[in-house]
Amino acid sequence: MLPDQQLLRIPGPSPIPPSVQRAMSQPIIGHRGQETKELLQRIKPRLKPLFGTTQDVFIITGSGTSGLETAVVNTAHPGDDVLVIVTGAFGDRFVKIAQAYEIKVHRYDVEWGTAVNPEGIKEYLKKHPEIKVVFSTYCETSTGVLNPVQELAHVVHQNSDALVVVDGVSCVGAVKTKMDEWGVDVLVTGSQKALMLPPGLTFVAASERAWKVIEDNKRPRFYLDLKKYRDNLEKDSTPFTPAVSLLFGLEQVLKLLDEEGLDQVYSRHHLMMEMTRAAFQALDVPLLTSDKAASPTVTAIKLLNSQSEQLRKVIKKEFGLSVAGGQAHMKGEIFRIGHMGYCSPADVLQIISTIEIGLKKIGQPIDLGSGTRAAQEIYLSQEVK
Amino acid sequence: MLPDQQLLRIPGPSPIPPSVQRAMSQPIIGHRGQETKELLQRIKPRLKPLFGTTQDVFIITGSGTSGLETAVVNTAHPGDDVLVIVTGAFGDRFVKIAQAYEIKVHRYDVEWGTAVNPEGIKEYLKKHPEIKVVFSTYCETSTGVLNPVQELAHVVHQNSDALVVVDGVSCVGAVKTKMDEWGVDVLVTGSQKALMLPPGLTFVAASERAWKVIEDNKRPRFYLDLKKYRDNLEKDSTPFTPAVSLLFGLEQVLKLLDEEGLDQVYSRHHLMMEMTRAAFQALDVPLLTSDKAASPTVTAIKLLNSQSEQLRKVIKKEFGLSVAGGQAHMKGEIFRIGHMGYCSPADVLQIISTIEIGLKKIGQPIDLGSGTRAAQEIYLSQEVK
Repeated sequence: MLPDQQLLRIPGPSPIPPSVQRAMSQPIIGHRGQETKELLQRIKPRLKPLFGTTQDVFIITGSGTSGLETAVVNTAHPGDDVLVIVTGAFGDRFVKIAQAYEIKVHRYDVEWGTAVNPEGIKEYLKKHPEIKVVFSTYCETSTGVLNPVQELAHVVHQNSDALVVVDGVSCVGAVKTKMDEWGVDVLVTGSQKALMLPPGLTFVAASERAWKVIEDNKRPRFYLDLKKYRDNLEKDSTPFTPAVSLLFGLEQVLKLLDEEGLDQVYSRHHLMMEMTRAAFQALDVPLLTSDKAASPTVTAIKLLNSQSEQLRKVIKKEFGLSVAGGQAHMKGEIFRIGHMGYCSPADVLQIISTIEIGLKKIGQPIDLGSGTRAAQEIYLSQEVK
Repeated sequence: MLPDQQLLRIPGPSPIPPSVQRAMSQPIIGHRGQETKELLQRIKPRLKPLFGTTQDVFIITGSGTSGLETAVVNTAHPGDDVLVIVTGAFGDRFVKIAQAYEIKVHRYDVEWGTAVNPEGIKEYLKKHPEIKVVFSTYCETSTGVLNPVQELAHVVHQNSDALVVVDGVSCVGAVKTKMDEWGVDVLVTGSQKALMLPPGLTFVAASERAWKVIEDNKRPRFYLDLKKYRDNLEKDSTPFTPAVSLLFGLEQVLKLLDEEGLDQVYSRHHLMMEMTRAAFQALDVPLLTSDKAASPTVTAIKLLNSQSEQLRKVIKKEFGLSVAGGQAHMKGEIFRIGHMGYCSPADVLQIISTIEIGLKKIGQPIDLGSGTRAAQEIYLSQEVK
């Protein structure tokens, strides 16, 4: 392994583009000064297209979990019944947060690797009109599933008065997201995934329908009180000290996304997903998710004989390549490749060609180079379109 | 192409490791202060193993050409007869420098892509006892040839009193180099190739035999006068303002080379050369050099129908991948991949798999993935050894 070379391909944190790294190394400025105010003014309108909303997107200094907690404590009143769709470890995170606040959780489990079927939610809501909020992940990082948020929100609103709260941490900025059009009431994301920043910022937006609930909500809250963020953002400010260097980086990230164009960013992620999936299909190494349920940002792969941890060790040692293992009961059964943010088709080819070597080294019966070739073919076919 | 992604794989400048970039961003210090003195003290002994010498290695602030000029003006007296072995554009550089100083140049041309045969030099020196200095490149960057410097130096010393001056710019630090043992009298290298730094420093060492000539040499010279560098290095100083930030980077580079171990660094470069060569052989795309003449740092590849420039445009546009074209009469005929310095086998796989796509896009009749597979097989076979 080459000293100083890290190929970070876990599903977040993702690598930082050099220009973002440079932007973040600017000298810190005072967070109550005119410069920060102007920085927030420049950032504010540019976050909205990522969420697909005309609402303000609030920047909270904290990790993704603080964003999820913000969604919970602002929308769910004490004693409320809520439905949490659990398609993996991050659905489970919503359950744990809600339980910590003594909210009555209805847990709707879906087999890991499978997306939620909105029809099931429709039936559930019909039987449980007491549900006030439905929580779902968009991309479930632990399995690489992309849940059908558009259909889900539609079904919820057709069959109940519940709010729809979505964890978009590992995909907003990489996958088409139309919060307003789809009827998502609260959407959360984080800085360290498709947004190409270090961890440290979480982003939350709320619909008008959600704001009515938030305003009425008497639950005690302080740092995560969305009303404070709204009141401050009107004055181009934040209620608490923001992570200023991350804001410098965020502005540069938004410039890079503008430069590439959001549609092209989404196409690139879709292409990288297809290249990755075609590669493992060609290698005859099974994917955890179906094509229909697959996320453009992360792919989970199953390995025979629970060799995932062995593979991860080999490719880390040989190439400095980090991919993630499985979480909870999937530990050892799968490995997960993050192909999001600062990641290109050329990087995907590097990931695949090095993993092929790793698979060979641990004795998996693969045909060297065939995965790379399949990914190359996908690249070439997409270009022709 | 992903904005902000540059895959720099020309034969220098080469990419900078992140820790070196960080080291270079330290605040500048005064070049006459104690801190710079201590920095030079730490660097001084660690450059010697790269050159394979017990002599001091002088650091001159300048590009590689200033190092070559240093070698010329210090060793060749006005009116001297010198022999320049020209195996490519950088042999030619020695000719031009010597001619600028009205030195009598005997030019010994070797077909581009071929290494010099020391036997031919033996014959030439026998017929021309007036030759005072023999100049040769070690790695000829323009063709990817590694000249047999050890045999060459042996033949020169067996058959004449001439000094042997070697341009090691594009390989010292990546290829075994034994200046003392081989009888090389002056060896030059640069910062921006195997040494993983930006351009801006050149390194020169001279043998005791060379020092006698240098001391006797009355040729007017100032900035490039090696005696000044020697007198100052004894006091852990430099005669003129050094590029301080590059010295910070150099210390970190030397740490990285120590961490990996020089033998492992050489093996890695050899492996990357073999992977690259095997890939193009499998693709049936001809290499410019024979296996015996090949350099571990740069590989030149010939393309049918002079499509090199077309290929370079495509891979730059699609992947941000820069490889070099041909120089002089080889322009359009070849392209050159730099695989040196901060470059790993994983990077070579990325280079090959993306170039395969490029070759397909320009209509070359290749079998996608077969080059990658051949490189993977080389990687796996080397590991078993």
